[in-house]
Amino acid sequence: MTHTVQHKQRLLARVRRIRGQMEAVERALESEAGCERIMQLIAAVRGATAGLMAEVVEDHVLHHLVDPEKHPGALNEEAAEQLLDLVRTYLK
Amino acid sequence: MTHTVQHKQRLLARVRRIRGQMEAVERALESEAGCERIMQLIAAVRGATAGLMAEVVEDHVLHHLVDPEKHPGALNEEAAEQLLDLVRTYLK
Amino acid sequence: MTHTVQHKQRLLARVRRIRGQMEAVERALESEAGCERIMQLIAAVRGATAGLMAEVVEDHVLHHLVDPEKHPGALNEEAAEQLLDLVRTYLK
Amino acid sequence: MTHTVQHKQRLLARVRRIRGQMEAVERALESEAGCERIMQLIAAVRGATAGLMAEVVEDHVLHHLVDPEKHPGALNEEAAEQLLDLVRTYLK
Repeated sequence: MTHTVQHKQRLLARVRRIRGQMEAVERALESEAGCERIMQLIAAVRGATAGLMAEVVEDHVLHHLVDPEKHPGALNEEAAEQLLDLVRTYLK
Repeated sequence: MTHTVQHKQRLLARVRRIRGQMEAVERALESEAGCERIMQLIAAVRGATAGLMAEVVEDHVLHHLVDPEKHPGALNEEAAEQLLDLVRTYLK
Repeated sequence: MTHTVQHKQRLLARVRRIRGQMEAVERALESEAGCERIMQLIAAVRGATAGLMAEVVEDHVLHHLVDPEKHPGALNEEAAEQLLDLVRTYLK
Repeated sequence: MTHTVQHKQRLLARVRRIRGQMEAVERALESEAGCERIMQLIAAVRGATAGLMAEVVEDHVLHHLVDPEKHPGALNEEAAEQLLDLVRTYLK
């Protein structure tokens, strides 16, 4: 899936941050924190998960819908960017 | 944007249904219907709008990301379908 | 549902704006505007519908969950505000 | 926040499941699984997080908006259920 080692590391870093955020939810529940705190922590996980998905979708659109070696220049980059703008709007 | 007259008519029919649903919200507010009824009617507009967006995105992915005349067979249809599956999951 | 004439008029004004936005989607489809324009217009309807729902939910939370005449001071306003913060986060 | 030990344990079990799902995303990235698989795994985290939030919101609505000891019977249960129906619709 990932095209470069750097991209893979970046996605893995995101995943680890989300795991850390889930651990924060777990601690807050165990310590009987207030509802507000717990709702905020879960909303943060939701936002981070959306960001992770947006990055994976971007990678999919830019690298998997067209094989650049077999079909150089076939992907309409403007149309792809329009789609990714929409994805970012919805995946917040 | 639309590739066939039928597709355009289908999208226009969706849009007119959503306008009708908004008119139902307006009538419900004017007649002081209960909150539950109004929330249900607005949720219906939200769902229909999501369905409209999913159809436009599908058209964009299948017809605009790659020019089939200039680059026949360049669009990886399996990858495109994977993306559209995700779009349908999110746009409910 | 609405507690004051002003609130009803405010909600009706929102609904009419959304209907106007849907008419803009319809015109854009009829005039075969580009996908990007149509996706932006539909995203605007989605955002406005979310805003409308958030306002109706706020009214429901503040006025319907507890009858202020029968149970003066029973609604925990801080807890209600926490809930509405979350609603606004999700209904964007 | 949690009113009963059972409820706390139920929420903690949900949180641990989500952590497990995030670990599955991490393994999939490390093993260079395909985009489709990774998008499905992330979508599963999103759904589970939404379910967790819906449960916390439900607890907040039913137990924190009105103090049942100070104001017995003050919470309009029908109105609360209408709100929670909407929350479940949006938090899928």
